[in-house]
Amino acid sequence: MSRFTDRLGIRFPIVQAPMAGISTAPLVAAVANAGGLGTLGSATMSPETVEAQVRAVRALTSAPFALNFFVHAPPRVDEAAADRMWQRLGRSDSRPALSAPPPFGAAMLERVLALRPAVVSFHFGLPDDASLRAVKDAGIVVLSSATSVAEAKLLAARGVDAVIAQGIEAGGHRGTFAAPPDEGDLGTLALVPRIVDAVDVPVLAAGGIVDGRGIAAVLALGASAAVLGTAFLACPEAVLDPAYRGALSGPHAARTRITRLYSGRPARAIVTPFLEQHAALEGETLDFPLQRALSARLDVAMWAGQAAAAIRELPAAELVATLVRETEAAQRHE
Amino acid sequence: MSRFTDRLGIRFPIVQAPMAGISTAPLVAAVANAGGLGTLGSATMSPETVEAQVRAVRALTSAPFALNFFVHAPPRVDEAAADRMWQRLGRSDSRPALSAPPPFGAAMLERVLALRPAVVSFHFGLPDDASLRAVKDAGIVVLSSATSVAEAKLLAARGVDAVIAQGIEAGGHRGTFAAPPDEGDLGTLALVPRIVDAVDVPVLAAGGIVDGRGIAAVLALGASAAVLGTAFLACPEAVLDPAYRGALSGPHAARTRITRLYSGRPARAIVTPFLEQHAALEGETLDFPLQRALSARLDVAMWAGQAAAAIRELPAAELVATLVRETEAAQRHE
Repeated sequence: MSRFTDRLGIRFPIVQAPMAGISTAPLVAAVANAGGLGTLGSATMSPETVEAQVRAVRALTSAPFALNFFVHAPPRVDEAAADRMWQRLGRSDSRPALSAPPPFGAAMLERVLALRPAVVSFHFGLPDDASLRAVKDAGIVVLSSATSVAEAKLLAARGVDAVIAQGIEAGGHRGTFAAPPDEGDLGTLALVPRIVDAVDVPVLAAGGIVDGRGIAAVLALGASAAVLGTAFLACPEAVLDPAYRGALSGPHAARTRITRLYSGRPARAIVTPFLEQHAALEGETLDFPLQRALSARLDVAMWAGQAAAAIRELPAAELVATLVRETEAAQRHE
Repeated sequence: MSRFTDRLGIRFPIVQAPMAGISTAPLVAAVANAGGLGTLGSATMSPETVEAQVRAVRALTSAPFALNFFVHAPPRVDEAAADRMWQRLGRSDSRPALSAPPPFGAAMLERVLALRPAVVSFHFGLPDDASLRAVKDAGIVVLSSATSVAEAKLLAARGVDAVIAQGIEAGGHRGTFAAPPDEGDLGTLALVPRIVDAVDVPVLAAGGIVDGRGIAAVLALGASAAVLGTAFLACPEAVLDPAYRGALSGPHAARTRITRLYSGRPARAIVTPFLEQHAALEGETLDFPLQRALSARLDVAMWAGQAAAAIRELPAAELVATLVRETEAAQRHE
């Protein structure tokens, strides 16, 4: 159906988005076997866990799949600021230590080059030139997310094989790394055609897509594939806190918000009393991802996109097959 | 192409959105003659001006077209608050009087019933039951905008003939009238299928659509027609301040923001120094539309959607023909 699917040898232009800690081997393998591209939510895993997860996927499928990594700047560890934040979050007990997974670095690079996944996607930009070159020289297809035309051009100039255009509807962390003010909040419908026109590489579209109508829509916009995260949250293969799973089928799944309160970077999640109670602290969070060390003790971060209320509880393989049927129907205007 | 176009007898599922003061008779007639549905930006006109404009359109076309009205609550006139706002806007000179066009009322209703346009669209909800009934009984097709599923259901229950699903990308005033917090900011891609599934009337899609790819996309989402406003701003038929026209082709057209500073209600416009300088006043504006009496003296409100940087400077008829060709190409996946 497109250069991108041809290059990867996947049957359908459907990518299961990385969800850290949620999209593990069973979900990734099920999507791969169904003809889509699954992505391990490996951004917060150690190199050892990534290797174990890759082996687990490969035990279940011979199809290609993707790994995902965060490439943020290392946070400034400010214990006094953390004390203040903990107090302002209403806590007088002892505060959790400021531990956090490191960004993509030398140890992970070495492991990735040894494992040679078909695809690596980066979030919050790209690693340094030498690391990027090493990944590409290993024959690994490299993706990264853009939330503006300017970011897409930067990624293309650095040599990505495809750009993920991440619209404002998307759940989880905004990939924003260089968007000018007021240009990083575009809806998927406005963003995708602009990026398609601005870069020479294939564009994948993310944000607000949970059914075949959404997939058909972004293909009409010029995308080479659709990226769906939230749609897979209700799959039994997704590793989800029971409160999170319950909220997705509850009355408040339609209420999502972009917040820094969970991690220190903007990310879309279902609105909880915690988010409402501490909204005044949005501008004062600890550096990403240190805020997570505190928030994880206080609330379940229920990452979700704006179409969360419409997701279906289906095994991943069945969901992919349903999406394919729906896409074809929408393209025939049934 | 759909029940909606059949009912109205228009050739293409393309609606030119109302733009108060901008979409006047020449633009509306050109769109109508090209096979789309034009809409007079009549919300801020007197009944006499509306009648003159309708006559002007009818002198140019026999095709159907639409009128548009605001149905907000009358504002609380607070002269002391206006004095404070004028000062906080940095002014020490005498303040403009708090004059503002009234919402849709008895005099306009009478005129509308006499003029019998094919379509009337309301913004910010709907008028009272008796007025709405009178408009419908006159055979006029009634539309109104929803920014959430809840609003769409309210409109359908009140008897609208079609719902306009207005995504967050849209330029100009948000139609929001009853959206729960965090549910009125959905991207078009997330919003349209949810409303299509929630109501039994046709759904029109607005927000971020400026070319045929966008039209094909919203048709795939299940919309019966696409509503484009910003796309028509660069047409020579649009009545536009030269500074506004210049900004649309300038380097900052991609920077838009939802602001209350111009009118007192949230509306998307191109970011100007005025908006940046007074951002701290966003929460303290005068009741809609009284804020406009002050802001109009200080800045040109350049309403625009998130795809403003991609609009084409074409005569309206040529733009409609281009959109139709592009839509068909996108549907064939060329």
